[in-house]
Amino acid sequence: MFAISQRLARVQSPMIPVVGDLIRAHPGTISLGQGVVHYGPPPQALARMQASLAEPDYHKYKAVGGIPQLISLIADKLQRDNGITIDAGNRVIVTAGGNMAYMNAVLAITDPGEPGDEVIIQRPYYFNHEMAITIAGAVPVSVDTTSDGQPIVSAIEAAISPRTRAITTISPNNPTGAVYNAHTLRQINALCQSRGLFHIHDEAYEYFTYSAAPRFSPGSIPGASNYTISLYSLSKSYGMASWRIGYMVIPALLEAAVRKIQDTILICPPLISQYAAVGAMEAGQAWCGERIASIADVRELVMEELARVGSFCEVPRADGAFYVLLTLDTKQKDMTIVERLVREHGIAVIPGQTFGIDPACRLRVAFGALERESVAEGIGRLVRGLRAIVTE
Amino acid sequence: MFAISQRLARVQSPMIPVVGDLIRAHPGTISLGQGVVHYGPPPQALARMQASLAEPDYHKYKAVGGIPQLISLIADKLQRDNGITIDAGNRVIVTAGGNMAYMNAVLAITDPGEPGDEVIIQRPYYFNHEMAITIAGAVPVSVDTTSDGQPIVSAIEAAISPRTRAITTISPNNPTGAVYNAHTLRQINALCQSRGLFHIHDEAYEYFTYSAAPRFSPGSIPGASNYTISLYSLSKSYGMASWRIGYMVIPALLEAAVRKIQDTILICPPLISQYAAVGAMEAGQAWCGERIASIADVRELVMEELARVGSFCEVPRADGAFYVLLTLDTKQKDMTIVERLVREHGIAVIPGQTFGIDPACRLRVAFGALERESVAEGIGRLVRGLRAIVTE
Repeated sequence: MFAISQRLARVQSPMIPVVGDLIRAHPGTISLGQGVVHYGPPPQALARMQASLAEPDYHKYKAVGGIPQLISLIADKLQRDNGITIDAGNRVIVTAGGNMAYMNAVLAITDPGEPGDEVIIQRPYYFNHEMAITIAGAVPVSVDTTSDGQPIVSAIEAAISPRTRAITTISPNNPTGAVYNAHTLRQINALCQSRGLFHIHDEAYEYFTYSAAPRFSPGSIPGASNYTISLYSLSKSYGMASWRIGYMVIPALLEAAVRKIQDTILICPPLISQYAAVGAMEAGQAWCGERIASIADVRELVMEELARVGSFCEVPRADGAFYVLLTLDTKQKDMTIVERLVREHGIAVIPGQTFGIDPACRLRVAFGALERESVAEGIGRLVRGLRAIVTE
Repeated sequence: MFAISQRLARVQSPMIPVVGDLIRAHPGTISLGQGVVHYGPPPQALARMQASLAEPDYHKYKAVGGIPQLISLIADKLQRDNGITIDAGNRVIVTAGGNMAYMNAVLAITDPGEPGDEVIIQRPYYFNHEMAITIAGAVPVSVDTTSDGQPIVSAIEAAISPRTRAITTISPNNPTGAVYNAHTLRQINALCQSRGLFHIHDEAYEYFTYSAAPRFSPGSIPGASNYTISLYSLSKSYGMASWRIGYMVIPALLEAAVRKIQDTILICPPLISQYAAVGAMEAGQAWCGERIASIADVRELVMEELARVGSFCEVPRADGAFYVLLTLDTKQKDMTIVERLVREHGIAVIPGQTFGIDPACRLRVAFGALERESVAEGIGRLVRGLRAIVTE
């Protein structure tokens, strides 16, 4: 009788912590696992955080959806960097991280049942999206992308059923690193509008792009604010992963629902982190840009080295985020290779099964945490390890 | 087509923020609304927090269920203050507040459906518990308590159905302030064991008791760790509401499920707040005790004044938390009275409808945020306001 929920039985164990345990059991391992950057938040973030401690009542609950000072900075940023205008038709809600923003969205628009409502995700998918939909009692429907990780509009359209409630896109993408074509995002957004679906677009990696192609926010399409949910995070751009601050732009229609959810799960985002976020956003994209330039240098080195691994290792084009998703021509299981890479070569990556990839053997390499000095050693171990394990 | 989820349509708007908006619209209002204390965290909390910023990698994601240093302090505290031993049979999970701990529990043990699994709550209920169950796609089943807010075991037993998955208790209670009899808690825990139900016991107000009766943690009952989920918060005791740190003790059976949920919703609790919590728990119950003694003084004054309001106002016994739930003999709606109290008398309380009370007119008075100097003015306004509004 004392049993876990069936909904949880259908959710895979989060692989990042599993690989994390493996790393801790093998000290000296270099991690290319976690989706983090090597740098911490800007000094302005810490200064604002410190100053906030002098405010009377700084220890009490604050507004469910975030403090006005932060929301105002976010609105300015959305206008400037994303072309999204905050007006009567939409709202900004600050969350404890981008994952919570996605969970809020899914809970606000789906109903569970037999069968539950459906949410379309692109495969390889971000595991926490697939998990959020399942935990909400809804059904994740994954649609395969091209070998370069671009969404296929016709396949998405074919996957729409009467139970579909939303289409999810992530650009720049986790885990593929793909930056979606603006044209494709416009098509998906138009499809949502014509079929009465929400378009949930995750831009957690928005500043991490390495090609000339301008990034594009579908939330900026005129009229899209009624059905477009845009998700953002300070975890990556501002090096604030442990602080847990993200935000979402939602149609005004969903405001009451999202406030109910957030009040119930969180009450309010951690105030000290919100003040740090105020300082971070005052530093702004220019500050992030300097750090991301260093990641771009690291990426060049990583791509160069990976191109030399061997013909058994395919390295797809990835113009954004800080991921590359290798495909290995081998019959070995991805998790077997991951375990051997840690145990025998002191290097950790994430197995493709995490992202719904089956049966191909793929590995996600995250290079955001590498610094120029550690690239050679980190990627060197990976290259040697893969050669030894796959071609032995 | 672009519509909110039915599950959200069934959830009431959170009344605390609604009353908060009302307060902001009427500057000068004294709030007896929010469940907060007047004091902030101990200096040790701030010192630990500051020191943590010097750690390398302090900005990166940490363990899903909390940092080991904090979990270790929590395990010591559970043994010392609650008589709960952490061993192979149970686990501590740190959350971003007590509400999240309850949501984690409900998601881990219920399945949605038509009809969904049921969770029993005591009425008057804590609104966010009722909301969490509904948002999870399960069904809250409320059972009336005695006029003093004590659970009625026979009524709880009668409410158990084949779909029941858990019984929820809160002691000291929000919103009634009742401290549950140890004997009653033992009976409810035994009922859970014999019927194969989880016992979710919320002890967010554990240190806030004002009678000689020792408080009791059902998680300390030998053998109870297999089916008892105990919830705690640093928001009240340590004046850390805005920091968002709580924790839960769960049966080992639920560990994988709760880790999946927390990874998906939060990734990890905010690190800076976890370090503050380390410092707070090093200060410990003795530090809380001194502050709570000042709240006990405030409570004496509040109870004295409320006893004089008039025969139309019943003040039930409340030996814990920092709430008292008044019953008014009037045909006016609770929300009407709340609005008039703010507009005409500059004092805010929470309407009984928030806690599932219908049709009786009840008002929750929260006195934790009052200091000795502000008691006379705050309660004076309430007493004068109630007399004017109810007896006019």
